[in-house]
Amino acid sequence: MITRNDALRLDASDALASFRDRFVLPDGLVYLDGNSLGALPKGATARVAEAVAREWGKGLVRSWNDAGWIDLPRRVGDKIARLVGAGPGEVVCADSTSVNVFKVLSAALALRPERRTILSEEGNFPTDLYVGEGLAHLLGRGHRIRLVPKGAVVHALDTDTAALLLTHVDYRTGERHDLSAVTHAAHAAGALAVWDLAHTAGAMPVDLTAAGADFAVGCGYKYLCGGPGAPAFLYVAPRHQEAFRQPLSGWLGHAEPFAFETGYRPAAGISRFLCGTPPILSMSALDAALDVILEADLALVREKSETLTSFFVDAVEQLCGDAVRLVSPRVPSLRGSQVSFSHPDGYAVMRALIARGVVGDFRAPDVLRFGFAPLYVRFTDAWDAARALAEVLSSHAHERPEFRRRAAVT
Amino acid sequence: MITRNDALRLDASDALASFRDRFVLPDGLVYLDGNSLGALPKGATARVAEAVAREWGKGLVRSWNDAGWIDLPRRVGDKIARLVGAGPGEVVCADSTSVNVFKVLSAALALRPERRTILSEEGNFPTDLYVGEGLAHLLGRGHRIRLVPKGAVVHALDTDTAALLLTHVDYRTGERHDLSAVTHAAHAAGALAVWDLAHTAGAMPVDLTAAGADFAVGCGYKYLCGGPGAPAFLYVAPRHQEAFRQPLSGWLGHAEPFAFETGYRPAAGISRFLCGTPPILSMSALDAALDVILEADLALVREKSETLTSFFVDAVEQLCGDAVRLVSPRVPSLRGSQVSFSHPDGYAVMRALIARGVVGDFRAPDVLRFGFAPLYVRFTDAWDAARALAEVLSSHAHERPEFRRRAAVT
Repeated sequence: MITRNDALRLDASDALASFRDRFVLPDGLVYLDGNSLGALPKGATARVAEAVAREWGKGLVRSWNDAGWIDLPRRVGDKIARLVGAGPGEVVCADSTSVNVFKVLSAALALRPERRTILSEEGNFPTDLYVGEGLAHLLGRGHRIRLVPKGAVVHALDTDTAALLLTHVDYRTGERHDLSAVTHAAHAAGALAVWDLAHTAGAMPVDLTAAGADFAVGCGYKYLCGGPGAPAFLYVAPRHQEAFRQPLSGWLGHAEPFAFETGYRPAAGISRFLCGTPPILSMSALDAALDVILEADLALVREKSETLTSFFVDAVEQLCGDAVRLVSPRVPSLRGSQVSFSHPDGYAVMRALIARGVVGDFRAPDVLRFGFAPLYVRFTDAWDAARALAEVLSSHAHERPEFRRRAAVT
Repeated sequence: MITRNDALRLDASDALASFRDRFVLPDGLVYLDGNSLGALPKGATARVAEAVAREWGKGLVRSWNDAGWIDLPRRVGDKIARLVGAGPGEVVCADSTSVNVFKVLSAALALRPERRTILSEEGNFPTDLYVGEGLAHLLGRGHRIRLVPKGAVVHALDTDTAALLLTHVDYRTGERHDLSAVTHAAHAAGALAVWDLAHTAGAMPVDLTAAGADFAVGCGYKYLCGGPGAPAFLYVAPRHQEAFRQPLSGWLGHAEPFAFETGYRPAAGISRFLCGTPPILSMSALDAALDVILEADLALVREKSETLTSFFVDAVEQLCGDAVRLVSPRVPSLRGSQVSFSHPDGYAVMRALIARGVVGDFRAPDVLRFGFAPLYVRFTDAWDAARALAEVLSSHAHERPEFRRRAAVT
């Protein structure tokens, strides 16, 4: 039997405990949705205020030079690179994850012109599939997205597979691919590997270089804590950077944006994967957030993540019995930094939990999703969340009508 | 002979004078670059601080519902619609101008499948051309961009013209197209009209509906004062909205983003032109800026713009003689809210001017560009800028070496 005292003891010996103080967390709230929107780093508040008042307000257009706005996408990209096993000049911060999927998938298809399949798995994050679908439709050359059951992708790779498009950590179950092994399998089949690191970056170490990954994209607002809709990032292996002109060839991807030439001449290196003018205020928040995240040892982050999510699994199973069913892998090394349970009335259960100050989220059809951002979530949070879940279920609180009404965002 | 007293008199009778107080403008600075980056509206400071501290910090992920983040692209779009002669549900705020060009140009080409030409004019803003080039290259079906001299576009329309892609107000010269006449000419040739309103929206009234325009895009950070890299907007005439699935089919353009369906089902109406998650902090600043701009009568804004730019032309020509040459149209109705002069040493002249506290910008090869945002630029600013320009030229200040060094952004 575990108790809240175990949680207190684990918190007391947590090597990352001091990081919690670097974030704004409302009193009394147990926040387990950092895999959807990361908490606000205190440093981001000051940084955004500075970007507004001093850089924009006083510096005005001069801040493109004086505050270094023009290089911000590369500077932020280089910071993210350190979190995903990439080198300087291999990652850039730009646009949304979806737009970046379009860029790198275009590149991957162009590099495998004789192949027509984008291989992915059922349950992959939909926006990646939608964008692949949009690209295939636009090209009109018979490209198709082929979805196979989870676990079957490696065997489904064949001579028609141009790109393997996968999310490293499944957004719903938290299940984690072996990035290196799957990449090698893709290469063995002559395909390119495109990874979505939305639920990876900042939550665990990953080594794109060692894995030999071709392309990657990821999100700035989950574990990177860059704020709502923070710009995303993309990685392009150096060997592919100049092999292709990506189609969203906006002026900031031009070799000399301020020469205002009539024709497009792609910039050298990763910069050609930029498109239009970046949202500086949002990107500044992400930049400040990264400064906090880069202070942490990612090996420790991962270690805490495994212990914390295991503790939560144990606590829920002890307190809730078989009222909920574990959807995430039980083996910690096989999952990301989230734990999902299913419940047939999952939506209402999550609403009832949120009303009690425990914020996770719901994913159709029946998944209660709990994200554990290791920098600011405590073992006591995990315990309290499990306790609140047990109370909701035993009191049938979720059967009250106010928890069944659907909101715009679920 | 005009004098500074004339400027003072014009300021005293300026019906829009009180708007200046709604913006942050550094003491002693004459800011004539609002056509590149608009000044900071005081209301945006508070709004961004609120979006950071209360919506993100306290509300966290709940703010997608509680603070209405999920509808922000449509709400902001509807505000912009009022500035460009569009109705509710016809404009959406999203992504960058370049990305939006890709979306609407894809749609235009798909609607004219038997045609292969994107017609534009020499000197059109490069990013629009670059994106057109990227799209044509990606499609690989023989689409081409055809550039003709300014003034020749209407006559160059032919049976192969799928889309006429034009910037309403030329970014370099300030010359303005007759949006309605050109659109009608495009339609008469069976082509679709795609307008870039980057230098239009917020500076003058324009009526996309009355003109029968097909598509438009525009920028959030120039006359709309949405802050550095503020998200852009796009307009799609209702008759085209559901005729096409735009290829950047990210999850927010899905009919039910939170159903997480495997296949893409485009949302009804303008929402299908959304793609990924929008940068909420940057978009909030734009939203607050629009509240100020919408208080102004755009007819008065245009009237002041014409008087103000004419006053500046007169002052420069009186004070500088033939040391500089007017590049913008002399007839006020033919230009936007900017005045450009050429000088063979334009870059250094602008640097010397900026060092004196008069901020305009330089556009290759020889253009001094002065933007007049009617809501916060005074007639005395125009006078003082002309006076400073005359002083730089007569003292040869621009010949000093420090003004010849190129900065990253020019």
